[in-house]
Amino acid sequence: MAVNLAVFNDFLPVQGVRIGIASAGIKRVGRKDVVIFEVAEGGSIAGVFTTNAFCAAPVTLSKANLAHQPRYLIINTGNANAGTGARGMVDAKAVCQALAEKTGVSAEQILPFSTGVIGEPLPVAKITAVLGDALTNLAENNWFDASNGIMTTDTQPKGASRQFEHDGITYTISGISKGAGMIMPNMATMLGFIATDAAIEQSVLQQICQECADVSFNRITIDGDTSTNDSCMLIATGAAGNAPVTQASGALYEKLKAELRDIFIELAHAIVRDGEGATKFVTIKVEETASKEEALQVAYTVAHSPLVKTALFASDANWGRILAAVGRAGVKNMVLDAIRIYLDDVCIVENGGRAVSYTEAQGAAVLKNAEFTIRICLGRGDVQETIWTTDLSHDYVTINADYRS
Amino acid sequence: MAVNLAVFNDFLPVQGVRIGIASAGIKRVGRKDVVIFEVAEGGSIAGVFTTNAFCAAPVTLSKANLAHQPRYLIINTGNANAGTGARGMVDAKAVCQALAEKTGVSAEQILPFSTGVIGEPLPVAKITAVLGDALTNLAENNWFDASNGIMTTDTQPKGASRQFEHDGITYTISGISKGAGMIMPNMATMLGFIATDAAIEQSVLQQICQECADVSFNRITIDGDTSTNDSCMLIATGAAGNAPVTQASGALYEKLKAELRDIFIELAHAIVRDGEGATKFVTIKVEETASKEEALQVAYTVAHSPLVKTALFASDANWGRILAAVGRAGVKNMVLDAIRIYLDDVCIVENGGRAVSYTEAQGAAVLKNAEFTIRICLGRGDVQETIWTTDLSHDYVTINADYRS
Repeated sequence: MAVNLAVFNDFLPVQGVRIGIASAGIKRVGRKDVVIFEVAEGGSIAGVFTTNAFCAAPVTLSKANLAHQPRYLIINTGNANAGTGARGMVDAKAVCQALAEKTGVSAEQILPFSTGVIGEPLPVAKITAVLGDALTNLAENNWFDASNGIMTTDTQPKGASRQFEHDGITYTISGISKGAGMIMPNMATMLGFIATDAAIEQSVLQQICQECADVSFNRITIDGDTSTNDSCMLIATGAAGNAPVTQASGALYEKLKAELRDIFIELAHAIVRDGEGATKFVTIKVEETASKEEALQVAYTVAHSPLVKTALFASDANWGRILAAVGRAGVKNMVLDAIRIYLDDVCIVENGGRAVSYTEAQGAAVLKNAEFTIRICLGRGDVQETIWTTDLSHDYVTINADYRS
Repeated sequence: MAVNLAVFNDFLPVQGVRIGIASAGIKRVGRKDVVIFEVAEGGSIAGVFTTNAFCAAPVTLSKANLAHQPRYLIINTGNANAGTGARGMVDAKAVCQALAEKTGVSAEQILPFSTGVIGEPLPVAKITAVLGDALTNLAENNWFDASNGIMTTDTQPKGASRQFEHDGITYTISGISKGAGMIMPNMATMLGFIATDAAIEQSVLQQICQECADVSFNRITIDGDTSTNDSCMLIATGAAGNAPVTQASGALYEKLKAELRDIFIELAHAIVRDGEGATKFVTIKVEETASKEEALQVAYTVAHSPLVKTALFASDANWGRILAAVGRAGVKNMVLDAIRIYLDDVCIVENGGRAVSYTEAQGAAVLKNAEFTIRICLGRGDVQETIWTTDLSHDYVTINADYRS
């Protein structure tokens, strides 16, 4: 079950990025499970990584190697190389070393990413054996195959792509993500790889990557669990020929950031839509707050409440559960009477209780849809934040309890 | 489904406390749904209440009335008088006023408690109509009926009772609780009422009540949701004849606190055991931490992780999910290699990954039991904390999504 949109297959190539795919048979013979991104010399790469204190060895290595003008990204599925102790780092480095030898760059110029089973040693030999295959088929138009190649238990590949013009130059952005499907003992690793042909100064690229991730990948939640391997990478090749963008670039800087943000959000939404057992795609907007922090506190408390999530699954407009979740979010000095809660445009809570105008039929009409917004107005400021989540269904329990891959 | 022990029916009367029960037919005709506690003059009452910012009107009123030497507690089920706006307080006061008139005390000497449906006006007339019935059958030996009378969707009544001697005086403690059963649109209100015949100075009683609740009712979690009506009340009648206990009372103070703590913990455990859809009663001990706060952060993050909870339901010793939950708990500068995780006595994680000695058969042997301990050692201090929780089963989703009462 999922709330997916149609599979995306309209990728625009991004000049300066070539992608190669191979099958190492890590988990299943014949499955494409190794993807290599090659970034032309002169490109920049930025990244945002999991905040889990126990990040996997490839994450630690990729973070460090970002400083060495990386030229290649290598992603494997089927094994997360997480919870693998000291051996994890040795194995991650071995893969980078092998790719370095085949490409003539230094091992520090390679960023490794792994997703899949945790606690099992990375099958290094299987991966290095197919590096040649992947390098042989490097091509600019391999984005769709890559979107398939990074899937684990996702029910469909995820991608987004667009072009825009500015001052006579056409810029292209393409990206892929993988997400929240997790079958024991896997983790819900989120990966995002986005590239543009704009030239962007590295420190600015990092800032843009962080800002875009903060309103996209960092604003989605299926079940509150954070993987040891989550990573989101942004590549800027410079092939479009513009003068490198800095924060002083004005309109182009703003335009690029807005377009990238939209792509990031599309890719993040695709992960939520493919959430395990999801039957609803739910936007939670918290408005009129005194700070970003309290807006997010309330939004995540509502999004993570099993009582709210099961009510959404049941298409039950259970305003009492939402109100109680707001109340326990830890925001100081909230005034109950000031709070209004809406399902799309239907006011369900005001003046400390169920809205006088509210009827169950109104709530049911909204919740029968597969997508809707819960809007919570705290009446204590002018800050707002938005996050996206799903319901909690029988299928979620089934997927996470009954199967073992 | 539940992990209940046998129904408790060995209550010892507590001199100075009489209990009356009546049937107001709030939700179902004939059901006992009103319970009155009468505390003899000279007794003390302390209380700990929900931290939900939107506490219900009866909670607000009980908090305020604690200062007025309360003589009666009145509890109704079937309606929580929560999310009822300004009318909620008017209704709660009306019940107190009616009971005051029948008993000759002031309305401020009455503490009201409500649990059940939220968002519906309290049926004041139904309750006040049966106050006479309840007062007529006031008796010291009505504890078992009271334990039944405060149930909502609990599958069985909950109680505990014990005596101990100190310096030639026999002291008695009895208590009842109700818990986590919640059927839409109810909330999981936790209520606890404990009484002893010891004489305890009011400020000391409040301190003891808070300390005991902190290691019992405040250390259990089914799904992380906090009700608007949670309340735990401790009564000390003084009928045992001791000189009022203060913190300077030395051995008796310590003994009383220890015995009360055990009763509080028994009553809190009973709530977890009767958790919705629970198939496991799980103790989570976090040890070797630098502070109480970080021990609790880790314990609750593990206890609330849907991935961990579904694995427990599946009797799967998924050490990777537990480790990842520890990693995202927000404790700064944790060292992965220092962490050890045990299922009962079986070490499942050490040196940054699966323990070398660990076999799946060992984990399966522990998890096939209905009760076990997850012990997490952080290796960074000497503080420890314990909480109790349940798994996340299909029945949890069914109870919370499929039914509507």
